[in-house]
Amino acid sequence: MKAQLGGDEGKHKFVLKTPKGTRDYNPKQMAIRERVFSAIITCFKRHGAEVIDTPVFELKDFDIAGQFDPMIPDAECLKIVHEILSDLQLGDFLIKVNDRRILDGMFAVCGVPDSKFRTICSSVDKLDKMPWEEVRSEMVGEKGLSPEAADRIGEYVQLHGGLDLIERLLQDPKLSQNKLAKEGLGDMKLLFEYLTLFGITGKISFDLSLARGLDYYTGVIFEAVLLQQENDHVEEAASVGSVAGGGRYDGLVGMFDPKGRKVPCVGVSIGIERIFSILEQRVEASEEKIRTTETQVLVASAQKKLLEERLKLISELWDAGIKAEVLYKKNPKLLNQLQYCEDTGIPLVAIVGEQELKDGVVKLRVVATREEVNVRRESLVEEIRMRTSRP
Amino acid sequence: MKAQLGGDEGKHKFVLKTPKGTRDYNPKQMAIRERVFSAIITCFKRHGAEVIDTPVFELKDFDIAGQFDPMIPDAECLKIVHEILSDLQLGDFLIKVNDRRILDGMFAVCGVPDSKFRTICSSVDKLDKMPWEEVRSEMVGEKGLSPEAADRIGEYVQLHGGLDLIERLLQDPKLSQNKLAKEGLGDMKLLFEYLTLFGITGKISFDLSLARGLDYYTGVIFEAVLLQQENDHVEEAASVGSVAGGGRYDGLVGMFDPKGRKVPCVGVSIGIERIFSILEQRVEASEEKIRTTETQVLVASAQKKLLEERLKLISELWDAGIKAEVLYKKNPKLLNQLQYCEDTGIPLVAIVGEQELKDGVVKLRVVATREEVNVRRESLVEEIRMRTSRP
Repeated sequence: MKAQLGGDEGKHKFVLKTPKGTRDYNPKQMAIRERVFSAIITCFKRHGAEVIDTPVFELKDFDIAGQFDPMIPDAECLKIVHEILSDLQLGDFLIKVNDRRILDGMFAVCGVPDSKFRTICSSVDKLDKMPWEEVRSEMVGEKGLSPEAADRIGEYVQLHGGLDLIERLLQDPKLSQNKLAKEGLGDMKLLFEYLTLFGITGKISFDLSLARGLDYYTGVIFEAVLLQQENDHVEEAASVGSVAGGGRYDGLVGMFDPKGRKVPCVGVSIGIERIFSILEQRVEASEEKIRTTETQVLVASAQKKLLEERLKLISELWDAGIKAEVLYKKNPKLLNQLQYCEDTGIPLVAIVGEQELKDGVVKLRVVATREEVNVRRESLVEEIRMRTSRP
Repeated sequence: MKAQLGGDEGKHKFVLKTPKGTRDYNPKQMAIRERVFSAIITCFKRHGAEVIDTPVFELKDFDIAGQFDPMIPDAECLKIVHEILSDLQLGDFLIKVNDRRILDGMFAVCGVPDSKFRTICSSVDKLDKMPWEEVRSEMVGEKGLSPEAADRIGEYVQLHGGLDLIERLLQDPKLSQNKLAKEGLGDMKLLFEYLTLFGITGKISFDLSLARGLDYYTGVIFEAVLLQQENDHVEEAASVGSVAGGGRYDGLVGMFDPKGRKVPCVGVSIGIERIFSILEQRVEASEEKIRTTETQVLVASAQKKLLEERLKLISELWDAGIKAEVLYKKNPKLLNQLQYCEDTGIPLVAIVGEQELKDGVVKLRVVATREEVNVRRESLVEEIRMRTSRP
């Protein structure tokens, strides 16, 4: 159980909780987390997701399972990542895309022996953190790959681009001879056509160095990275780490399939904890004030003996769905009521007084500008809604 | 990990989850749970709650802590219970209210020895399930209370009512002599005045038999019960059990208070699991179809070769915040697309065809009525919003 204590005029509402294997978060952190969850869940629901069991707090996944025509669900997964990262306003991002089959075909045509596929793959995966020269010497020195094979790989894995690059590789004399690579490139072309229809190719990069460690991927793989901001020293925008990833994993056996057939599946994971830390750091750095409640208006009075009128008005507002608070004092000072709004970020104050009651109006005060307008009581709900609706 | 398998034309989206000490719920149960959580959380936020840590799934609490003028936060707690139970449409309900001080005063004036207060209190608490005669014989036979004292208690604990009853008891020759009872009755009167301002006294009953087991309550206590429906055999509406409760517990020591002072506190607990079972049973009994997704519209086509047009349209809808799905097939049959809507409860179909594309319209079909109207493409989002907004 938790409570927060403060000044006498303040009020302290809290929701009790029994944590179950989760970290403790303070209200500020919870407000950030709620914003992130809300963006993700809203997006998932927009794409027809049903929720199974309680939402996970460490990992958010969206998966599409079933026999479908190629690349349509895969394209939707990338659209989902694009929507969530845009909505969260984390800054500029890039979604790197590749295909396991293109990687495998590329290793084959470069002369990597089958037995070394996996270990060479994990070297390639380091290209987002290490320059090619270092990766190359790891391949040759530590992993015993021939320098010629490594150089051939080097020509491919430093490539990234869009439809142009895909078209070029489809004409590549070596890759086009490899069945797997050709299949992967054909699907990659289709994927980019769908992504063009979705209008999101500007933030998608076909990147031959993207390998992703997990062995179970069988087709498209992707990873979203945030790009470094406000940094003029770096020529190319450097990535500050992965915030989402996923891919196709057709090899898993369907648990619900009585015949044990494999279920084609493509999925997205959102790196929730990563996103939280980024937002928390940013909030701390900017000293941005994060509200921990969503209250739209404080019902206040300037004179004494108006508790009953405050309660009547707040009841009307609650019943109309307005988020409203009132100080639990019979005769609070106006200054204390305004200070409460400043402290908690409540944007509006609805003030009732003898004159306002006679005139059938409520004085609505905008906390930030101190502007005050008289609003007819019957229009108050609409006025509050209008003034507090998100842009 | 979970997947659901179905027909080839169907699609299967799921959100992966790692349950942490929670039961497994199917999508239908989850949909019901989400509806309940949403009603409760929306209400708590309307009343200015801030959320601490992850929401609890077994128990939902709202507490107000701090030094305040009497009965204002207590009245808000009852308003919250009233709002949540009304919103959830669980059926007719009654919120019973009493005060620990009235109970204690009553026992004193009836001649219950201090040492028997607690055990007699727990007998009184059984009055919602047992007739007075049985409770009386438990008091006298098992607990050794004098028959005279029991009869005096009987005169009080069978009373329930509103402001009238409070006024009457304030004039009661015995009770009015007891300091605790008088204090409790005075506050109860104040509470009912506030509840009148909130317009909710119709569902509130001051009930002298309400005792609630927990020892830590120090003032107002309350309990919300659902009333039996469609039952003409019972004279008075019989309760089918408690779905919310709470009260004032001023005795807890403030954990955050450096001087270890006691923090006045009043709180509500919502009986989440109870409410779930009631709703689940009701859904099963009524064969009501519960949707497990919130998809507003399926983007479909009647002719072949329109996948690209479907993807373009659905992308527009997603970007406008519409919850939309598309079958992941290049050329799905219209019948299969309509069947998918029937199966999953999607209310609208947006159909693109050669003619519609030429005319700059989309054919919008209402699944339930089979009505079809041509909507100009630029008005489609508004039209879908209008047709799928909740009443």
